[in-house]
Amino acid sequence: MKKKCIKWIFGAGAHGRITLDVWRSASPDAEFHFIDDNPRMHGKIIDGVPVDGGIQFLLDHFTPADEAVVAIGYNNVRLLLGQRLENRSLILGNAIHGSAVVMASARIGGGTMIFAQAVINTGANVGKHVIINAGAVVEHDSVIEDGALLGSGVSTGGRVTIGEGTFIGAGTTLAPRIKVGQGSVVGAGSVVVKDLPPRVLAYGVPAQVVREVDKSFDWSRLL
Amino acid sequence: MKKKCIKWIFGAGAHGRITLDVWRSASPDAEFHFIDDNPRMHGKIIDGVPVDGGIQFLLDHFTPADEAVVAIGYNNVRLLLGQRLENRSLILGNAIHGSAVVMASARIGGGTMIFAQAVINTGANVGKHVIINAGAVVEHDSVIEDGALLGSGVSTGGRVTIGEGTFIGAGTTLAPRIKVGQGSVVGAGSVVVKDLPPRVLAYGVPAQVVREVDKSFDWSRLL
Amino acid sequence: MKKKCIKWIFGAGAHGRITLDVWRSASPDAEFHFIDDNPRMHGKIIDGVPVDGGIQFLLDHFTPADEAVVAIGYNNVRLLLGQRLENRSLILGNAIHGSAVVMASARIGGGTMIFAQAVINTGANVGKHVIINAGAVVEHDSVIEDGALLGSGVSTGGRVTIGEGTFIGAGTTLAPRIKVGQGSVVGAGSVVVKDLPPRVLAYGVPAQVVREVDKSFDWSRLL
Repeated sequence: MKKKCIKWIFGAGAHGRITLDVWRSASPDAEFHFIDDNPRMHGKIIDGVPVDGGIQFLLDHFTPADEAVVAIGYNNVRLLLGQRLENRSLILGNAIHGSAVVMASARIGGGTMIFAQAVINTGANVGKHVIINAGAVVEHDSVIEDGALLGSGVSTGGRVTIGEGTFIGAGTTLAPRIKVGQGSVVGAGSVVVKDLPPRVLAYGVPAQVVREVDKSFDWSRLL
Repeated sequence: MKKKCIKWIFGAGAHGRITLDVWRSASPDAEFHFIDDNPRMHGKIIDGVPVDGGIQFLLDHFTPADEAVVAIGYNNVRLLLGQRLENRSLILGNAIHGSAVVMASARIGGGTMIFAQAVINTGANVGKHVIINAGAVVEHDSVIEDGALLGSGVSTGGRVTIGEGTFIGAGTTLAPRIKVGQGSVVGAGSVVVKDLPPRVLAYGVPAQVVREVDKSFDWSRLL
Repeated sequence: MKKKCIKWIFGAGAHGRITLDVWRSASPDAEFHFIDDNPRMHGKIIDGVPVDGGIQFLLDHFTPADEAVVAIGYNNVRLLLGQRLENRSLILGNAIHGSAVVMASARIGGGTMIFAQAVINTGANVGKHVIINAGAVVEHDSVIEDGALLGSGVSTGGRVTIGEGTFIGAGTTLAPRIKVGQGSVVGAGSVVVKDLPPRVLAYGVPAQVVREVDKSFDWSRLL
């Protein structure tokens, strides 16, 4: 008997559950499994889907017909895990909600999630392991590098660049041609009118650099 | 001859007319009637639909095949009227535009309106007699209590709580896990990064409490 | 042999390319041509479509079966060119993305572009040669005059008036009933809570008038 292909979702938290809803709305009869690195989650049923185990379980059970996505809100964790899966040649899926618009001339990398009502406009280039939350607009010719996350309702002007692993909080506006350096964090509701360097926390109207994003930075309050 | 079922819209103002447009786009051949408590509206034709009378007219003419929604922008009026109709066992409809996205795991109460391009994301719980205006995003696991209103383009982070009868002005951003107390008013374009107590007016970036919302508060300037 | 009708896009820059993507998604087999007043563009191929020449080329080759749109971000240039084409009785098309919502009671003028996920709500009146960028919401009964441009993610309250040729930057919120005078510019991410006069630059939260928009104003940094 032919095994049914499985859609694996790495991360059984909020972004994993949104991804499940997104994939289910397109493929209601597919078989879904959660993977989570937190052993206390193993064996649980989340939104009707079992949490099977950690990364080793996935590597042991993944077949060439399957696809996987890393749906973890922490950018650096998502990016590292995504790269590990790529190195093992797992097929990385995309979770793009049916209401999202990806214009024909835009490009989207593997392992990237694009949630309800988001727009990836003409000529935009969205990397791998990116999360574009609901209602966010990536304007024409913008570049969203690997592992970045845009919160819900973010609007960019044209030709912005969002660095690798950068976090843009919900409702933030970026003026045209703005560049935000890799690993930076922009707080919710900010208006970015000047370029921001790598690895800084910035927020406000206009967004100002507040501190460095170093090892002491508490990512948990962003999610 | 079987009577055609009627869709009753309580309130012939802006929200009533949007609701009419929403319902018409899904059911172009249905029969619509406005109800309005302002006697000067009675007998008028609004967007092709008659304003029949006030609440007594509705109670006298409503049949079990009909449905009703209270489409009044004032939260406390909408909530009170909605509860009165519920107490009389009228069937409360929802007016959800075809472009709005309600994820499969989200829940929506009766009498609630969700306008074009809005998103109710995974696990969110939207109460009764709520208005979610166009393009607003209710993020995952958020709770919108009965009688609340979100303006167009509002974006929430995950797990926010919007209290009963609370008004969130257009374009406002709420950070993750924020709670806004019942009956409060947040002005347009605000960024809410700290919890707000019940019955206050707050606005700005970040949103600050400006005054109490007491009987002297002028709701008309919000709409 | 019957000539195939042509969709002409005046302007081979960003807004022209978005318009091409929008028209192509609805009519993948149509024949598209760019027109551009910059002679250095003539003969080039942009996103697979030739740039044929300037306005004289268009006037010489336009046939009654064709349609044209002026897709130039500069409001005054777009409006002037649009009016010139109207004076020559060219048929002005609309480029409305399939995901945009134009409610049944709203009106849209000729030559106007409405991009992905935008909303033109109940009773709104959008003029000619207007650009409504992705995800923008024009609320009920608002008036957007000829040649105006709303950036991505703009949210209006109900009954606002945006003057002729006025530019509203991305992510801006306008409170209900606000009027912005003709030819004014509102910077990205602003919150407009008081009316703005004609021909001023304003920005901030709340938006404040910063200077006049006179001949020395540099429109290029807006786009």
